[in-house]
Amino acid sequence: MKKTVLPSGLRIVTEAIPTTRSAALGIWVGIGSRDETPSLHGASHFLEHLLFKGTHKRTALEISSEIEAVGGETNAFTTKEYTCYYARVLDADLSLAVDVLVDAVADSILEPAAVETERGVILEEIAMHEDEPGDEVHDVFAEAIYGDSPLGRLISGTPESITPMTRDQINRFYRRHYRAPEIVIAAAGNLDHSAVVRMVRKALAGTPLDTGPADSAAPRATDKRVRTRKAANVVVHRDTEQAHIVLGGVGIGRHDERRFALGVLNNVLGGGMSSRLFQEIREKRGLAYSVYSYASQYADSGVVGVYAGCAPAKSGEVLSLIRAELARVTADGITPEELIRGKGMAKGSYVLNLEDSGSRMSRLAKSELLHGDLMSVDELLARVDAVTVDEVNAVARDLFAQPLSLAVVGPFDEGELNDW
Amino acid sequence: MKKTVLPSGLRIVTEAIPTTRSAALGIWVGIGSRDETPSLHGASHFLEHLLFKGTHKRTALEISSEIEAVGGETNAFTTKEYTCYYARVLDADLSLAVDVLVDAVADSILEPAAVETERGVILEEIAMHEDEPGDEVHDVFAEAIYGDSPLGRLISGTPESITPMTRDQINRFYRRHYRAPEIVIAAAGNLDHSAVVRMVRKALAGTPLDTGPADSAAPRATDKRVRTRKAANVVVHRDTEQAHIVLGGVGIGRHDERRFALGVLNNVLGGGMSSRLFQEIREKRGLAYSVYSYASQYADSGVVGVYAGCAPAKSGEVLSLIRAELARVTADGITPEELIRGKGMAKGSYVLNLEDSGSRMSRLAKSELLHGDLMSVDELLARVDAVTVDEVNAVARDLFAQPLSLAVVGPFDEGELNDW
Repeated sequence: MKKTVLPSGLRIVTEAIPTTRSAALGIWVGIGSRDETPSLHGASHFLEHLLFKGTHKRTALEISSEIEAVGGETNAFTTKEYTCYYARVLDADLSLAVDVLVDAVADSILEPAAVETERGVILEEIAMHEDEPGDEVHDVFAEAIYGDSPLGRLISGTPESITPMTRDQINRFYRRHYRAPEIVIAAAGNLDHSAVVRMVRKALAGTPLDTGPADSAAPRATDKRVRTRKAANVVVHRDTEQAHIVLGGVGIGRHDERRFALGVLNNVLGGGMSSRLFQEIREKRGLAYSVYSYASQYADSGVVGVYAGCAPAKSGEVLSLIRAELARVTADGITPEELIRGKGMAKGSYVLNLEDSGSRMSRLAKSELLHGDLMSVDELLARVDAVTVDEVNAVARDLFAQPLSLAVVGPFDEGELNDW
Repeated sequence: MKKTVLPSGLRIVTEAIPTTRSAALGIWVGIGSRDETPSLHGASHFLEHLLFKGTHKRTALEISSEIEAVGGETNAFTTKEYTCYYARVLDADLSLAVDVLVDAVADSILEPAAVETERGVILEEIAMHEDEPGDEVHDVFAEAIYGDSPLGRLISGTPESITPMTRDQINRFYRRHYRAPEIVIAAAGNLDHSAVVRMVRKALAGTPLDTGPADSAAPRATDKRVRTRKAANVVVHRDTEQAHIVLGGVGIGRHDERRFALGVLNNVLGGGMSSRLFQEIREKRGLAYSVYSYASQYADSGVVGVYAGCAPAKSGEVLSLIRAELARVTADGITPEELIRGKGMAKGSYVLNLEDSGSRMSRLAKSELLHGDLMSVDELLARVDAVTVDEVNAVARDLFAQPLSLAVVGPFDEGELNDW
């Protein structure tokens, strides 16, 4: 991995993979929905859409067609803590991709008419998400844990926040937050680091991100303590065929030393077909098609949860089984065999993912943006290997002995959950 | 690519990718839902689930945990014409993956209790699918085109067909259809062909697939003409937030020489952000988040369609815009610039996909199973390059001048569509 910091504070990280013919490029901005005030709820994601709508040099059609004409793909996504704009192209087209994507992110116009059109697109995206109850339940769960605070809100915003948001509000958000020290440009593939740095500098020239030495950027207000609610049940009534359920609680942050033990625990509990939850709920009883556990980590907080989709009439039974498995792992811990399997899953999936240039680009960027350094593959594997049964059992007790919250999307009313 | 045909008729195809540390393995069986009689509707998919439930050598938990313990992934899927069981592992674990997956596919017990449990899982999978209206509408569209014939039915079966299906029916289906000449085992990654052949032979030894010289397998009844309906409107009423719409018609089969021109047409019409439909419906008017065209090909038939998800009140407008774009491309054809872009997309995405061992394994297997030979990358790119504007325009007229069918999932009743 090679890294260059421009005078502006913008960071460029690359990894050469000479055996590939492709290159993956990402522009990662350390800004997401948790950086929004209530009146700007959804601004990060709205802005992500708008950056594809035209610059001083290119129309929206030119942005997409220049990359698609050479068979490349480009897209973007917004999370609670960062926003990523990316492209994957043949290696010979990397300079084109840098030119287009840097232009789009650095120098968008946010033309008023485009803002109005894109508002409609985002309202449709929100509606589409509401037609995907197996996804929506995870947002309901975040609300159950964090309530009406930045980590508890929808990344997309809501119709109520998106409808009145003005072009000027979004533009101020853009220019205030999209500053060079908040940005990491990452590339992986058949490339040369110095060449990538030259491409980036050339593409940045004359844009608002082509600034002098980094001003002391206002750090994110992570000193504010994250608010979490007391354990709560939240139900969204929808006339779905299945009940979509998440049971869980507050987890750990991204820098917590227990994250390796939690990774192993998650694999044993609900990380694959051989996991306890899959075996008990699907394999032995046929109560669900999809059942799994997961952990999400933020800078200073996180959640852990178990998802299941099941027949509404079986929800109580499925929930009892999930509670029983959480109680069992809290009380009795995992076995040495499960430790080995959980580690094997963690290490194998990590190494298998390294073959993809897009995954490697993401790994570089997230390490730089979220951790401030890159852990080598060997070091990461060693950290997984060092996890003990006792550490896994301790994190299970830490996280699952607390009162748990329940999120449900399905054909239920609030009162019906009291018996569960 | 190397190929070995065992005396039984089972084919083994491999591709060595020495630059990778992984291996992808697939067992592809040329049997899918179109091979089912009405009383066996959903049997291929039910069987796919059951083959992970235990063999003479392994329990269900052993099947999944042996591969997951080394960090590998294994899964399966069923289509209308074939079923695929696959695993992705580190190269050193390929022999383990072959041993487990061949055992599962060749020598499953179909234990009666497991059949009952898995019936519940499949009913939940069907229910889950009904909670995904953006997917479901494609099944509704297939019904609009093919009616109640094999290609028009759900791959999963329905609660009405799955509930009464017996273990013995499924077992007969298994033993009748899972015969050596119907099976292609494909692997791509850091491997040696002869070693893979030895692994497969060893894993097959003593199983029902370890047969003598191929008996003349009954070929699929593709001599029966595929039935298509007259253009029809089919509505499934659901209280969704969006209307999920597919408009389209009968397409072309997998061996049709026009498939390269159709690929270019599809890219120009609705294959990316620079496509006509994306530009007209999303970029200019903000009426949809997701809008795209697609083409599915079967041995002797196919479909072409356009999907859009939009506000129910805007459905008429969106549908008019889709019809207008189809009429425009039928009447005026595409431009030389669009031809270049459509070809670039086709070639670039094809080449970019080749980097993934899983994609390469699939390409090998499908070429062998569905085409009977492997077109080289260069030949395929040359075929795309040879496509002319006239060929694209001709296939547009062939496919979109016909009366088109409409499938809708949304808050509508059948009568409401008459005006559209």
